[in-house]
Amino acid sequence: MTNLPAHIQITEEGPREGFQIEPKAIASSDKIRLINALSQTGLSSIQVCSFVSPRLVPGWTDADDVVAKLDKREGILYTALWFNEKGLQRALAHKQTLTLTGTIHTVASEAFCQSNFNRSLELNRVAMVAQTQAHQAHNIEVNKISVMAAFGCNFAGVVPVEHALDAVRQGMSIADQCGARVQVIALADTMGWANPGSIERVVSGVRDQWPDIPIRLHLHDTRGLGIANAYAGLCCGVSRFDATVGGLGGCPFAARRVDTGVARGTSPPTRLAPGNIATEELVLLATELGINTGVDLDALIDCGKLAETIVGHSLPSAALLGGSLLSYRQ
Amino acid sequence: MTNLPAHIQITEEGPREGFQIEPKAIASSDKIRLINALSQTGLSSIQVCSFVSPRLVPGWTDADDVVAKLDKREGILYTALWFNEKGLQRALAHKQTLTLTGTIHTVASEAFCQSNFNRSLELNRVAMVAQTQAHQAHNIEVNKISVMAAFGCNFAGVVPVEHALDAVRQGMSIADQCGARVQVIALADTMGWANPGSIERVVSGVRDQWPDIPIRLHLHDTRGLGIANAYAGLCCGVSRFDATVGGLGGCPFAARRVDTGVARGTSPPTRLAPGNIATEELVLLATELGINTGVDLDALIDCGKLAETIVGHSLPSAALLGGSLLSYRQ
Repeated sequence: MTNLPAHIQITEEGPREGFQIEPKAIASSDKIRLINALSQTGLSSIQVCSFVSPRLVPGWTDADDVVAKLDKREGILYTALWFNEKGLQRALAHKQTLTLTGTIHTVASEAFCQSNFNRSLELNRVAMVAQTQAHQAHNIEVNKISVMAAFGCNFAGVVPVEHALDAVRQGMSIADQCGARVQVIALADTMGWANPGSIERVVSGVRDQWPDIPIRLHLHDTRGLGIANAYAGLCCGVSRFDATVGGLGGCPFAARRVDTGVARGTSPPTRLAPGNIATEELVLLATELGINTGVDLDALIDCGKLAETIVGHSLPSAALLGGSLLSYRQ
Repeated sequence: MTNLPAHIQITEEGPREGFQIEPKAIASSDKIRLINALSQTGLSSIQVCSFVSPRLVPGWTDADDVVAKLDKREGILYTALWFNEKGLQRALAHKQTLTLTGTIHTVASEAFCQSNFNRSLELNRVAMVAQTQAHQAHNIEVNKISVMAAFGCNFAGVVPVEHALDAVRQGMSIADQCGARVQVIALADTMGWANPGSIERVVSGVRDQWPDIPIRLHLHDTRGLGIANAYAGLCCGVSRFDATVGGLGGCPFAARRVDTGVARGTSPPTRLAPGNIATEELVLLATELGINTGVDLDALIDCGKLAETIVGHSLPSAALLGGSLLSYRQ
């Protein structure tokens, strides 16, 4: 435990992740209600929406409306996600509210790149150069490399550390070519393959090569190892994490058909595996380890309960049921 | 990760834990079906029932019937739980099927001892001496100390390491007095207070004092840290764990009233926090870390799905939804 950081920064991605995957329509007012509640918890960064095709992601048809109407609170970074020029244009319209930066997306598995983006890693490189330049043309700083499938892949199996490093190298090469300065390397366990050992190996490998660039972990709890993986990251000194309140979201790559008895009232007959790690479980872990998060855990748990009410079914987070330990200590 | 054990022993407690806490009656035939399925997974130890008062625990009124009818498989230890002479007498009637050993139960928190057993630690000592002697009178070996609330307590807050060590010392003193030989020290996170740091501190403390006696961890996932705690235990070289398939069971000390929208079809309006860690998540963690469990993970996951069908609602385990990674690797 010697390398535990003194404090961590969490990016809350619940609204963006959660509301795009829910099968039923969520009212814009409910989305705003959750974002505003999250803004009161001490979280310093909240990803509030996706600017994506309403045809592909009907859950974010109202992205412009949500951003326009949320109560912006000073000191919080509100961010959004987009994948193309059209999305970028929509985001630019909200630059008074949103903090806009660009990301170079790379993939540690050729097979996943092909399956997810329908292009090879080499063509993804070409696309990312173009995307980086498009951002720069609008004076949007591109400062992050995000490696998808950094720990494993449903199509290629275990991803060797060297492939994850290759993906970071490709991102660095794109940044160099475009004159972008990389300030964070995000490692995403897109399909829930990581374990504490692979977290340690990949984080150590990246740090050996790029010792001065902070690492950010985007972890999924697909198979129940998410918080153990976060702990392994903390032990390596990682101090930046993505998470979703209540564990909002789900894994599009792992679902189970439910035949009998286990369907929840308002859920579809297919149950998705959990998606991102739950923010309140991460905050609870950090708090219990003496790591500062700046977040009011009880207020965050209340946000998770609000999220459950909004989506109309239970969410994966155990901390929503178990609660924090703060009240017992007082 | 240097102290990871090469293999671990898991005691499956799902049938005993799960069927006593479910609000609806479970048919004896379903209990037997799950026990028999678990017997095919490679698990070497299964706790199959409680011999307790039918008035207090109606879910185990049929304990005798279940034990009498299960298909005993060679090489598996089938065990049961009991708390008094009457329970012991019932267990003795099944000694052809069950492996009967006795446990010295101690508590690391005076307040929890008072609340749970309605007696002081000192009176608990007297009761445990009597219980140990009662077992010995029937030639039942008493070989385990089990420390409840070893990491924290809803009534007393954080439990200092020294209090956990005091509880082990009391157990050792009872064993000495009765001429019992302690072969395992179990540390139970009864109310879900442990974190990876406290696991390390308590395990190290116990090992410093009793270096030759194996430690067994009984972990709960009340607040979502259960598997991270198991990982911390593995890192300390702990090689014995209790767990319940699917995360069967629940925490009687942490529940949440559900007001709206989130009630599951067949569940009561109060949702309990998760109880024990899920066996398949523990097996998945160990397998991914290269630790041998002897368990067929896919068969175990099928048992978890069977358990969900039997209890009629979803269980906490994410691994039941995400599945194992084995098929992707082939």
